[in-house]
Amino acid sequence: MTRADGTGDTRRRANWEARREAIVDTSARVFARGGYHATGITELCVANDLGKGALYHYIGSKEELLAAIHDRVMDEVMLGADRVAEAGGSPPDQLAMLGSELLDVIHRYPDHVWVFLHEFPALTGERAEQFRQRRRQYERRVEDVLQAGVESGDFRDLQPRLTAMAWLGMHNYTYLWLKAGGPLSARDVARPFAEIFMRGITNPS
Amino acid sequence: MTRADGTGDTRRRANWEARREAIVDTSARVFARGGYHATGITELCVANDLGKGALYHYIGSKEELLAAIHDRVMDEVMLGADRVAEAGGSPPDQLAMLGSELLDVIHRYPDHVWVFLHEFPALTGERAEQFRQRRRQYERRVEDVLQAGVESGDFRDLQPRLTAMAWLGMHNYTYLWLKAGGPLSARDVARPFAEIFMRGITNPS
Repeated sequence: MTRADGTGDTRRRANWEARREAIVDTSARVFARGGYHATGITELCVANDLGKGALYHYIGSKEELLAAIHDRVMDEVMLGADRVAEAGGSPPDQLAMLGSELLDVIHRYPDHVWVFLHEFPALTGERAEQFRQRRRQYERRVEDVLQAGVESGDFRDLQPRLTAMAWLGMHNYTYLWLKAGGPLSARDVARPFAEIFMRGITNPS
Repeated sequence: MTRADGTGDTRRRANWEARREAIVDTSARVFARGGYHATGITELCVANDLGKGALYHYIGSKEELLAAIHDRVMDEVMLGADRVAEAGGSPPDQLAMLGSELLDVIHRYPDHVWVFLHEFPALTGERAEQFRQRRRQYERRVEDVLQAGVESGDFRDLQPRLTAMAWLGMHNYTYLWLKAGGPLSARDVARPFAEIFMRGITNPS
């Protein structure tokens, strides 16, 4: 293979991936409006301005497309969690940063998050299992920060799992009202939420 | 009209209402599994063991059925809020009781709540407006308790709307994991959640 061919392959691959990413974004909007089960391939073709064969070339299958929407959310959420871990700091700082990062994803990807939270039961087999594992992995990051805070004495004695679910609920549920272009930024919400939660679990002694 | 006829009418009306209620419950399960848009009248007929004409006799239309599922949830939630208001007590007590009542509805009506939280955008026109008003009415109950707590000095200075949304998120989001027959009762969750939230907003002075 000549060097020119290799470069061409790389470019073709990059083009394919960019187009696929755009299809994932557009389809997230379509699923968010009409529901995953009720949306047919024909609708997806129209929304993406592609024929059926071309669409399948990019997405593989409708369920693979749904998995890609879930992955987009999980990728962003885990990237945020990694940034927080790298930044270091006390457990309270870590938890506040996790909250900011999570609200930022919800604010930036309203359609993807809507589909993520509503349509995950439509994933089957290995895709469902992979989704469960990644979600659980993120939940564990939150639990670990809570546990670390109990051990450091920053947080009172608490049930890490139940407390993580309370924290996740408080933040995730903003997908219903925290919208890009709305009156509140992710930061406007992150600060008072962190204040409530942090006081709620701080060690009083 | 003779007295016997009147009694017959009443009995027929009660039978119709009981049957309709059972159809609402069964259909909530069907919508929760397959999605509102993707579920056809034929599927609803099969699940309810009724012909199309008989089903329409009870439900009027598919959207009316969806509205009835929403009403079932809102009726229960508002009944709980009324019990709390009648019980009286300090704002912290009121908020803790509201949490218990809400988690109890989520625990008892997992399918209805799933449909409620996922399919409300499918309601149109007056039904959508009525749903929005009732939901807003409940949110205001929470905000009012928070505001009363700020005025009484029980709670620190806080943003009632944003704090209510944090509280609602924390509680509502349990619909994903708090199930009847699961390892945790509504009460198991209500107590630690109230503890987090109450400490989170209590006036430190």
